[in-house]
Amino acid sequence: MKKTLCAVFFDVDDTLYSTTEFAALARRRSAEAMRAAGINLPTEKILKELNEVVEEFTSNYEHHYDKLLLRIPRSSSEGINPALIVAAGVIAYHETKSTALKPYPDALAALKRLSETSLIRGVITAGLQIKQAEKLIRLGIHPLFSPNAIFISDQIGVGKPNPKLYLRACDEVGVRPGEAIYVGDNPLTDIDPANAVGMITVLFRRGGKYSHLRGRSRPTYSIENFRDLTRILQRDFRI
Amino acid sequence: MKKTLCAVFFDVDDTLYSTTEFAALARRRSAEAMRAAGINLPTEKILKELNEVVEEFTSNYEHHYDKLLLRIPRSSSEGINPALIVAAGVIAYHETKSTALKPYPDALAALKRLSETSLIRGVITAGLQIKQAEKLIRLGIHPLFSPNAIFISDQIGVGKPNPKLYLRACDEVGVRPGEAIYVGDNPLTDIDPANAVGMITVLFRRGGKYSHLRGRSRPTYSIENFRDLTRILQRDFRI
Repeated sequence: MKKTLCAVFFDVDDTLYSTTEFAALARRRSAEAMRAAGINLPTEKILKELNEVVEEFTSNYEHHYDKLLLRIPRSSSEGINPALIVAAGVIAYHETKSTALKPYPDALAALKRLSETSLIRGVITAGLQIKQAEKLIRLGIHPLFSPNAIFISDQIGVGKPNPKLYLRACDEVGVRPGEAIYVGDNPLTDIDPANAVGMITVLFRRGGKYSHLRGRSRPTYSIENFRDLTRILQRDFRI
Repeated sequence: MKKTLCAVFFDVDDTLYSTTEFAALARRRSAEAMRAAGINLPTEKILKELNEVVEEFTSNYEHHYDKLLLRIPRSSSEGINPALIVAAGVIAYHETKSTALKPYPDALAALKRLSETSLIRGVITAGLQIKQAEKLIRLGIHPLFSPNAIFISDQIGVGKPNPKLYLRACDEVGVRPGEAIYVGDNPLTDIDPANAVGMITVLFRRGGKYSHLRGRSRPTYSIENFRDLTRILQRDFRI
């Protein structure tokens, strides 16, 4: 029996692109730039400290580099204006966004294919609104989504894994949860809540940082890449 | 009589590069990007509104694009996630920094020449610390300054035109004000306070936005470009 499908929603981070790989590269380039700006420590040491700061203060904290400067030996940045070191780190991070933010090629191909159908194509993502929107633009994929179907937790006042976020997205675009797919990589914050509201769920297992987690519920489908998704859509939904 | 000179300090904005031209270009590209992201208004109309926002909220305000969205007709961005529009503007502004921040060629040449002398080469600038430091790095001129001679008002707690800012800079690098030059474009916030503490002052008149202002005091020198500065240093200071 072919089922009715009206919408496909996607998680962003580590689903449409490798957030993990991007962050590792951007932080390394920041560490290199801060070293070039005057921190007298090996890059690996700066990077290790930076990773600890991000771990302790979360990735959305706005003053990672200031905290880094507090943590390294004072002598290692003596005589250099600290603003130059922080600015060097910030610039290197931004420049990495310009050059290294790319969607998974198979994700891009699947999105392009979906954009030629009448399905609603949306995003349900957790994070800060400008930061998440920036990712969609820099990935070059924002024109492939339905303009009114982008849902960012920060804009809605509901965060993952609250199932209300998923229900709200379905309501806003006027589809029943049972007619909407959610594709995400995290069993606990993507799959469980989407299951809870009755969506069709697709667990994306590319071996990212959440692949070892076990959710309370099972996804409707499990995929290794977006070609698998395309096959499922063809086979089970005639799309 | 040749005078003793130990240090040359520079203003940054509209002295080492054209802040006015850069800002105009970056805002225009932001307006174009926001239009491309879905604002249904002519670019000129978006740009005019953006310029008004900057005028009313100052250039260091952090939410220009949010305010812009509040000011344009609601119908002109209907159905588009506002975070996408704001992010498009922010990205375009940052990309302009990557590509269009260039020092005046003659300023760069003069700084290079000075960096081959034993003079202290510094900056005394008003603004936010990371923002001002970012300009020095993106302009590619930060290695030409003495590492301990960069003074940003935000870091010192003293703003222009308070003469204390200028005195503090001289004190910190250990020179008497009478042995230090300050080069700036604003008669009221650069020349008057530097004169007040006894520095040698150079008014940079490239026809920028402050060229019509008249200060309370007269600069020691007036220059049209940085070749004039080089000539003064050779003639009057044997440098």
